[in-house]
Amino acid sequence: MNEAQASERLIVNCLPLTDEERAAFRAAAPGVRQEFAGNPMERGTMVWKARVPADLRGAATAVVGNIPPEDCSGYPRLEWLQTWSAGVDRYVAPGVLAEGVTVTNATGAYGQTVGEHLFAMMWALMRNIPAYARQQDERRWHDLGRALTPAGATVLVIGTGDIGSHFATLCKAVGARTVGVRRDRTKPADGIDEMHGFDELDALLPEADVVALAVPASPQTDHLIDAKRLHLLKSTCVLLNAGRGNAVDPLALAAALAEDQLHGAGLDVTEPEPLPASSPLWDEPHCLITPHVAGGNHLEATERRIIAIALENVRRYAAGEPLVNVRR
Amino acid sequence: MNEAQASERLIVNCLPLTDEERAAFRAAAPGVRQEFAGNPMERGTMVWKARVPADLRGAATAVVGNIPPEDCSGYPRLEWLQTWSAGVDRYVAPGVLAEGVTVTNATGAYGQTVGEHLFAMMWALMRNIPAYARQQDERRWHDLGRALTPAGATVLVIGTGDIGSHFATLCKAVGARTVGVRRDRTKPADGIDEMHGFDELDALLPEADVVALAVPASPQTDHLIDAKRLHLLKSTCVLLNAGRGNAVDPLALAAALAEDQLHGAGLDVTEPEPLPASSPLWDEPHCLITPHVAGGNHLEATERRIIAIALENVRRYAAGEPLVNVRR
Repeated sequence: MNEAQASERLIVNCLPLTDEERAAFRAAAPGVRQEFAGNPMERGTMVWKARVPADLRGAATAVVGNIPPEDCSGYPRLEWLQTWSAGVDRYVAPGVLAEGVTVTNATGAYGQTVGEHLFAMMWALMRNIPAYARQQDERRWHDLGRALTPAGATVLVIGTGDIGSHFATLCKAVGARTVGVRRDRTKPADGIDEMHGFDELDALLPEADVVALAVPASPQTDHLIDAKRLHLLKSTCVLLNAGRGNAVDPLALAAALAEDQLHGAGLDVTEPEPLPASSPLWDEPHCLITPHVAGGNHLEATERRIIAIALENVRRYAAGEPLVNVRR
Repeated sequence: MNEAQASERLIVNCLPLTDEERAAFRAAAPGVRQEFAGNPMERGTMVWKARVPADLRGAATAVVGNIPPEDCSGYPRLEWLQTWSAGVDRYVAPGVLAEGVTVTNATGAYGQTVGEHLFAMMWALMRNIPAYARQQDERRWHDLGRALTPAGATVLVIGTGDIGSHFATLCKAVGARTVGVRRDRTKPADGIDEMHGFDELDALLPEADVVALAVPASPQTDHLIDAKRLHLLKSTCVLLNAGRGNAVDPLALAAALAEDQLHGAGLDVTEPEPLPASSPLWDEPHCLITPHVAGGNHLEATERRIIAIALENVRRYAAGEPLVNVRR
């Protein structure tokens, strides 16, 4: 390796890009070498694989893509990793990346898809659609009675980041009043009419027609919704979780649903995952379970946003400007 | 019967009213005799019964409630019938009511509940919720792939009355562009960005991400969506019907769904109803069937609106003012 090569920057981009998108990346970083290792055929599939050819690993100074964390030690010149996920736990864990490697993520790309999934689960439970889908299997034409509406309802959003904020905005758009709960109650969020702290949760739960959880996993949120708090809910309340499964005590929820303490629950995340076959939640007619499909790249718009975030950071990297979405 | 009695007006009100609501009706029509025959216990149930005591039928000049059409000849002094339904076909049919009897309906009370049901079906199909509900029966945790969104989508609303307009307003609120089709294209409707006539339907269908039907039964709308028009749809299109079942050819739809000509269909109305057990639509995984539950009094708000319409007309009847929602 001569001196020029040693100082040369190399971005290895594992996104599944079209030819036009590759051209846009090239145009965004004139003078910086870029290699494209993504498989365009993965576009629209639920699993993207980051495969960096072995002969590029030694020279790569930047990688776009969720490379296997155990491989990170094989990139001696790496100075920047851009993930396509929002979570970067596996990369910021001690010993995975060398000191000084910058990690940026795709925060902002997932608010729409997860917020919309929460919204769809809410409407489905309010109009009894999971129960009608099951009746359909029996070719049964039978009215299941009363429906609910978010119009005029109070929607409590616990965790008001990108996802909670997007969900709240949708609820407001169809006539709900939105109440947020976050660590720092003085920090407003789009779509939230009034903000509270976690210490006020017990006072807020009895007023809520919908309770939506969009909090990350943390010791503070472990079984945040437990038997005691389930007892505080209205019998017509709809509980939703698309954050992390540990926020809801699954056995307490199953018991509460069986006793009609709430109208229904929509869970895209469970404790543990996959939900074991022995869980009583599977059989609970007022529980809707989706297998952690709210996020990921289930929406085409998410793919476009991930690519836009990466493109902006490639431009900034080439120009020597500070990156966005820096996580360390 | 003396002269005073013969000239006296009598309103028999069969709504399931609370004591407070009865007081409001009394206050709205000072000097006019009112009898309350409704059963408050029916409030919140899906079936209201209009039972006019036999001894009041001879004297009743007005009835609020869907009395059996075959009994209508037993009301010799009737001058006004206020239904709690939107449909009045059975009352305006020849020979049911005497010439000169005014019929008013509850149009305006059902737009929210039917519009919201269409909206809930749309979101459920876009996020594959009926399919996940069926997987849940098998305790299966499996990602079904891509989801869809109404954000940025084109929603075609066929029939832009109270229901279609409410649905369109919801779709616009979450980021859709709305296109309406109605008989008189020069007449705008709330929530509709651009209006077209039925003669333009074939040109509009290939551009639609969602097609929602909210048209009444008529010869013009019989099999409006047939095999030929189903072929015009995008493979990602969601078709919804909450108007009348005859608007969609059921066998053509089953064939189109089986061949993945569209993403899915949500039907709250079918041809015929109930849908026969032999229908291939029951088994179609991309078809969501609800048993004509979009309307009725599935929402508490609908009950409140029906009562508000009747109260306003009772006030007008007593004051000698023209009634609203006159259907003949």
